[in-house]
Amino acid sequence: MLSELLLTEISRLNAQAKLPLHRQLYEALRRAILDGKLEPQERLPSSRDLVQDLQMSRNTVVAALNQLTVEGYLVSRVGSGTFVSTKVPQRALQSIRLASHPAQQLSVRGRALSTRFCASELEIQPFTPGIADFSAFPVALWQRLQNKHWRMTYPEMLDYSSSGGYAPLRRAVADYLRVFRSVPLDVDQIIITSGTQESLELCSQLLANQGDTVWLEDPAYWGAGKAFMATGLNLHPVRVDDQGIAPQPHDQTTPPRLIYVTPSHQYPTGAVMSLARRHQILSLANQHQAWVLEDDYDSEFRFSGPPISSLAGLDTQGRVLYLGSFSKVLYPGLKLAYMVVPKGLADAFKRAHYDLNRPGQMPVQAALAEFIDMGHFAAALRRARQSYAQRRQSLLAALQPCLGPRAQITGAEQGLHLCLRLSDDVDDRALAQRIGKLGLTVRPLSAYCLQRQDMRGLIIGYGYAPLAEIKRFGAVLAQTLQQVLNALPPG
Amino acid sequence: MLSELLLTEISRLNAQAKLPLHRQLYEALRRAILDGKLEPQERLPSSRDLVQDLQMSRNTVVAALNQLTVEGYLVSRVGSGTFVSTKVPQRALQSIRLASHPAQQLSVRGRALSTRFCASELEIQPFTPGIADFSAFPVALWQRLQNKHWRMTYPEMLDYSSSGGYAPLRRAVADYLRVFRSVPLDVDQIIITSGTQESLELCSQLLANQGDTVWLEDPAYWGAGKAFMATGLNLHPVRVDDQGIAPQPHDQTTPPRLIYVTPSHQYPTGAVMSLARRHQILSLANQHQAWVLEDDYDSEFRFSGPPISSLAGLDTQGRVLYLGSFSKVLYPGLKLAYMVVPKGLADAFKRAHYDLNRPGQMPVQAALAEFIDMGHFAAALRRARQSYAQRRQSLLAALQPCLGPRAQITGAEQGLHLCLRLSDDVDDRALAQRIGKLGLTVRPLSAYCLQRQDMRGLIIGYGYAPLAEIKRFGAVLAQTLQQVLNALPPG
Repeated sequence: MLSELLLTEISRLNAQAKLPLHRQLYEALRRAILDGKLEPQERLPSSRDLVQDLQMSRNTVVAALNQLTVEGYLVSRVGSGTFVSTKVPQRALQSIRLASHPAQQLSVRGRALSTRFCASELEIQPFTPGIADFSAFPVALWQRLQNKHWRMTYPEMLDYSSSGGYAPLRRAVADYLRVFRSVPLDVDQIIITSGTQESLELCSQLLANQGDTVWLEDPAYWGAGKAFMATGLNLHPVRVDDQGIAPQPHDQTTPPRLIYVTPSHQYPTGAVMSLARRHQILSLANQHQAWVLEDDYDSEFRFSGPPISSLAGLDTQGRVLYLGSFSKVLYPGLKLAYMVVPKGLADAFKRAHYDLNRPGQMPVQAALAEFIDMGHFAAALRRARQSYAQRRQSLLAALQPCLGPRAQITGAEQGLHLCLRLSDDVDDRALAQRIGKLGLTVRPLSAYCLQRQDMRGLIIGYGYAPLAEIKRFGAVLAQTLQQVLNALPPG
Repeated sequence: MLSELLLTEISRLNAQAKLPLHRQLYEALRRAILDGKLEPQERLPSSRDLVQDLQMSRNTVVAALNQLTVEGYLVSRVGSGTFVSTKVPQRALQSIRLASHPAQQLSVRGRALSTRFCASELEIQPFTPGIADFSAFPVALWQRLQNKHWRMTYPEMLDYSSSGGYAPLRRAVADYLRVFRSVPLDVDQIIITSGTQESLELCSQLLANQGDTVWLEDPAYWGAGKAFMATGLNLHPVRVDDQGIAPQPHDQTTPPRLIYVTPSHQYPTGAVMSLARRHQILSLANQHQAWVLEDDYDSEFRFSGPPISSLAGLDTQGRVLYLGSFSKVLYPGLKLAYMVVPKGLADAFKRAHYDLNRPGQMPVQAALAEFIDMGHFAAALRRARQSYAQRRQSLLAALQPCLGPRAQITGAEQGLHLCLRLSDDVDDRALAQRIGKLGLTVRPLSAYCLQRQDMRGLIIGYGYAPLAEIKRFGAVLAQTLQQVLNALPPG
C-alpha cells in the first residue's frame, strides 16, 4: 500500500524532472506525511521491507529516511523502528498545495505604491510619453564593445563596486557634465546608479528622515513621487507656472527637507525654469537647509539654443544633487544612471549605496565608458536630437489647425513630449480615453496633478514613433481634438 | 579689457574640451557675470565691437548674447544696447566654484545607513565571509550566450520589463525551485529583481507601513537590517539558538508585520532551522497576519544531505515570500535575483516593481535563462559545491588543533563561511583586528549581534580563496587563535 503510493508519487515527480532516486523517495514520503496519508505515530515498514517493496538500493532508502529524520518528519526509536513524528503540526497535514489566500493584503503604503498611475502606462504606441526610440541604438557596435571588455575582464570586474562605479565611466560623465551642463565637479562626486529611481531613493534615504517633507512640482513626474512615498516622505506639491516651480509664501509653512525639480524642462508642462526662479530655489534651499534634487532628465534633447545652465552649476553652497540617466540616449533596460553629489557627502553616499544596493554591472559600465570616450555617445545624441526635432515639428504641424485660445502648446522646444494645454471646460481624461479608443496613447495633464485641479491638457510623446507614423497618426489626433473642441459651448 | 578677460576664460575652457565657439563665449560671459567681473546694469560693448575685439563671427557673438538674454543674465534695451541684468542675485555674484560645505549633513536615517557595519567590509582576502569564487565563472561561454541573445535582440528587449522579468528565465527559476527546494509555485509568482536588497526593500515597502515591526534574527545579516531601516521599519531582534530564530513569549509583545529569516543556514551562525521551529514561525505568521521573508541565500551549497525543504514549501496559507539570488553561483555584479510571492500579491508586486525600480537587463536575463536551460547552471553549481566542500574541509582541518570547549564550530555543513564560536572571555573584535594585521580578514561574531551581548566568535569565509591558500593561511589563522586561547586565564 505505502510502496504503491510512494511509487505513484515518485513517477509523478519523475515526470517533472530527473531527481536522484533518494531525493524522489524523500519527497514522496514527505508529501505522504504532509497530506496525512501517513499519520503521526504511524510506524513505517522497516528499511529492509522498503528496499524490497520499492526495488531500490538500501543506500537510497536509508538516505531518504535519514534526511526525513534530520528534518523531524520521522522519529527513529532504537529497537522498535521508525515512526511519523507527532511534532508535524496538524495544520501542515492539510494539502501542501497553495490554497486561495483570503488574508492577503498589502500595507497602506503598498496599496499606494502598487496602484498604477495611468492605466495606459505600459502601452507603447506612437504618442506614449516618456518613451525614446531605442530601435536606432547601434546594437552591433554595443555588442563589440561589450565583447572587448568581457574578453579583458578580470575577476574583480564581476564583483560589486564600492567606489561609486567604474572609474573611466565616472570620468567620462564628469567631462560631459562639465562641458555641456556647466556643472562644476570633481570626478569623486559622481556616483553611477542603476537608474534615476535608485538615485532618488538614495537621496531620500540619506538626506531625509521618515516624515520629512519633500517639495515636488505640481503637476509632477509621478515616478519621483512614488520613490518619495516608498521612502516615507511627506509629499508637499508646489504649483508650477510658466517659469517652473513657483513656491508661494504659504508653502513656507511646510518647510522642505528636499526640493525635487526638473528645471530644464519641467515634467510634464515643459516650462523652463527662469534664472530668477533658479536663484529663488537655491536661496530657499539655503534658508531651510534643504537639498535640491535636480532631475535633468531630458536636457540632452534641447532643439533650440544651447542647454540652459543647470542649478548645480549655479549652486555655490553645495546644496544641489544633480541626477541624469543614460536610458533616453542609449536604451532603458541598460539600467545605468548617475548623480553628482556635493563633495562632503560623496563618501557617505558611496558607502550607503554599496550597503543598500550592491552596485555591479562593471563590464557594461566599461563598455559604456568606451562608448562615450570614442564619441559614439555624442554621435548617437546628435542623431537622436535631429530625429526628435523633426518628429516634434511634424507633430506640431499636424496639431496646428487645432491651436487657438482653447488649445496651446506650452513649454520649451525640448525633450520627447509636448504639452498641449486645453481650456478648463475640456474633460482631458475623457478626451484621452476617446483617443485611446483609436489605438493612440496620450495622457491627460490633469492626471499628473497632485493637488491642483486647474490644469487640463494632453501630454503627447513623439519619441517613440518614426516620422511617417507621427504624420499619419498626428492627423488622426488633430481630427479628434478638433471635434471635441468644436463641440464645446462657445465661451 | 572685457575681450581680454573673455579670451583668457575661453582659452581656459578650451583646454578642457572642444566646445563650439559660441558656447565658449557664452560660458566666459556667464562666468564674468557670476564672478562679478561684469556688474549688474553694466553696459556690454556692442555686438559689432565684440566681433572685432574677439575676432569671432557675428553669428557666434549673437548666439552667445541671445542665449544669455534668454536665460536672464543680460537685458537688451532697444536703441540703447545690452546690459547685465539687475536680477542676477547678489549671492550668485560670488565665485561659482564650490566652496567647502559647512552645512552638509545627512539625516539621522542617512547617518545610520552610511555607517559601514565592518570597516573591513570590502577587503577581499582569503577568509572574507560572503564572497564566492567567481574566478571560475565560465566567462567565454557566458559571452557566447550573451552575444547570441544580443544578435537576436528586438527593440522591446532593450526596454524595461513590466511582467516580472523575462518569461523563460522565470520558467527556469520556477522549475529549479520546484525540484530542488520543494517550493510549490506557479511561474506567475516569480519576480526577477536586481538583487536580494531590492527584493527586501520591495517586500518592506509593499507589505509594511513605516513604523511597522520586522522581526529579524539576532545575530543577523546586516544587509537586510539596512534595507529595513531604509524603508522605515522598526527592527525587533529575536535571538537565534541552534535551531534558528527562537521567538520567546516576550517577543510577542512586539508583534511583527514581517519576519525575516535565513532558515536553511542562519546567517551568520549556520544554524539550520528545525522542522518544529519552521512550523512555529508559520504559525506565528498566521497568528499575527505577518509575512515571512525566507532568504535562502546559500541553500545551493549544502555539502551533506539533500537541502532541507523550504518554509515556502511548508506554507499552506500563502504567508511566505521566498528570496534567492544568482550572485553566489554566477557572479555578484550580474545583479539578478528572484523572489516568489504569494499568488494573490503577484500583480501588485509587479506593478510596484515597475514603478519603483523600472527593471530591465532583458538580454542578460535571456542569456541566463539559456545558461540554466542548457544545464550550465547545474554544472557550475556541482563544480562550486565540490570545490567549496573541499575548502571547508581544508579550513576545518587547519582549525582542528584549536577546537575544544572554548572554540567550537557551529552550524550546518553548508555555504561559504563557517562560524567558530568562542567562549565568553574572548574579545572577538580584538582578535579579528589582530588577525587583520596579518593581512587576513575575518569578522567578529559579536559585530553581527543587534541587541544580545553574549556571543563571541569568528565568521570565517572559505568561498573566495583557492584550496592552497586556505591551507596556507588556515595554518596562520590557527596559530594566532591558539596563542590567544592559550593566553586566556584557565576557566
